[in-house]
Amino acid sequence: MQGHVGESDNGKLILYKAWFCPFAERALIACKEKSIDFIEKEIDPYKKTEEWLSINPNGTVPALTQNGKNLYESSICVEYINDCYNNDVNLLPLDPYDRAYVRLWGDITGKKIVPFYYKTMKTPEEDDKKKSIEDLLAGIELFSKETQKREGPFFMGNVFGYVDLMLFPFVYRCNAVLGRYRDFKVPKEEKYQAYNRWYEACLEHESVKSILQDQEKLFDGYNSKYTNPRL
Amino acid sequence: MQGHVGESDNGKLILYKAWFCPFAERALIACKEKSIDFIEKEIDPYKKTEEWLSINPNGTVPALTQNGKNLYESSICVEYINDCYNNDVNLLPLDPYDRAYVRLWGDITGKKIVPFYYKTMKTPEEDDKKKSIEDLLAGIELFSKETQKREGPFFMGNVFGYVDLMLFPFVYRCNAVLGRYRDFKVPKEEKYQAYNRWYEACLEHESVKSILQDQEKLFDGYNSKYTNPRL
Repeated sequence: MQGHVGESDNGKLILYKAWFCPFAERALIACKEKSIDFIEKEIDPYKKTEEWLSINPNGTVPALTQNGKNLYESSICVEYINDCYNNDVNLLPLDPYDRAYVRLWGDITGKKIVPFYYKTMKTPEEDDKKKSIEDLLAGIELFSKETQKREGPFFMGNVFGYVDLMLFPFVYRCNAVLGRYRDFKVPKEEKYQAYNRWYEACLEHESVKSILQDQEKLFDGYNSKYTNPRL
Repeated sequence: MQGHVGESDNGKLILYKAWFCPFAERALIACKEKSIDFIEKEIDPYKKTEEWLSINPNGTVPALTQNGKNLYESSICVEYINDCYNNDVNLLPLDPYDRAYVRLWGDITGKKIVPFYYKTMKTPEEDDKKKSIEDLLAGIELFSKETQKREGPFFMGNVFGYVDLMLFPFVYRCNAVLGRYRDFKVPKEEKYQAYNRWYEACLEHESVKSILQDQEKLFDGYNSKYTNPRL
């Protein structure tokens, strides 16, 4: 169900998102995984209206509203969705150590991969671009090495979950945008093997497939009014 | 119980900390709150030995080890301690929205207060110092306003918890270090009233009192080999 800011929610969870935003996709995938009957509201997060800022003072997506209460920050939204809808799907493991471990790897990939997607895209200098792609690949190698510890194809094994949905929207954009703008490609080498298998498995995973943006649209969006301020 | 890196843990939780580090104190307070029988190991996080980096590749405190498994990042350590030791003390509320809300305010204070403690301390320029103290006070005012929504004295009301332990170690150092180096003081004004009440309540709270460093020692430590690289 699609809707607009201010619309009545009838107790349903409202997810504020922007079609181009990978942070918002983290929460969107979480909603799909948990099979929630929720309301999607497309926002232009760069239009800082009073109404929008009353929901999220930072003006970023994703943001959530339920029963008049608001939340934001993608990892917090994802954990809320997981905590709030206690069906059979657990996005985070129930074991305390494993739960901490996936939080840690959500954090690690958020620091070692995500920033280099934006940096590679933004940098106009050839040398900086090269360095940034190296850093991005180093982050992906680290993730691949950790993923390889288990059977796969997902980060924790055969169940799709927290780390997968926290990372995938960004590396999907690496292929869609950086692949064409910056000649970025993850090589088919041994050290990226677990990553490449993981990527393909995510691409075919139902909740991910249901929200994927067309790569051509994302690529075009690179120059649009939405993505430009960020680049 | 005090110990050293590599010592056998007999299944007990090992907490790696450095006496001067407020991030480590977050996990330390969590352990005290949950009344855990744990092992404290004092680390010089600036000595990046192979053994230490094998526990935390970032070389930061806090880090945890239990049954040969490691964790780091203070918020992740705190949640692990809370999840792992399910006694009657809940550092995070059980209600999903409230739980997300305290995570959000842990994050907000971590962005709007914590960085300005370090920035105020580091900056040599008079103008930057003034701006940084303004930012620090703005963050404290924001926190005060939010705390005021409930009866207090703690962030969520009469129970000490997540947001309190995430923030207190830093504002304690604001008083200990910035108070003398930078003439920093939170005024006794209406807009800081809930904060000032909160601060006094934390100062008297048992788990906090049991781990507090002497302000004089922290002040002296400002020039020590430990704190200097950070400043």
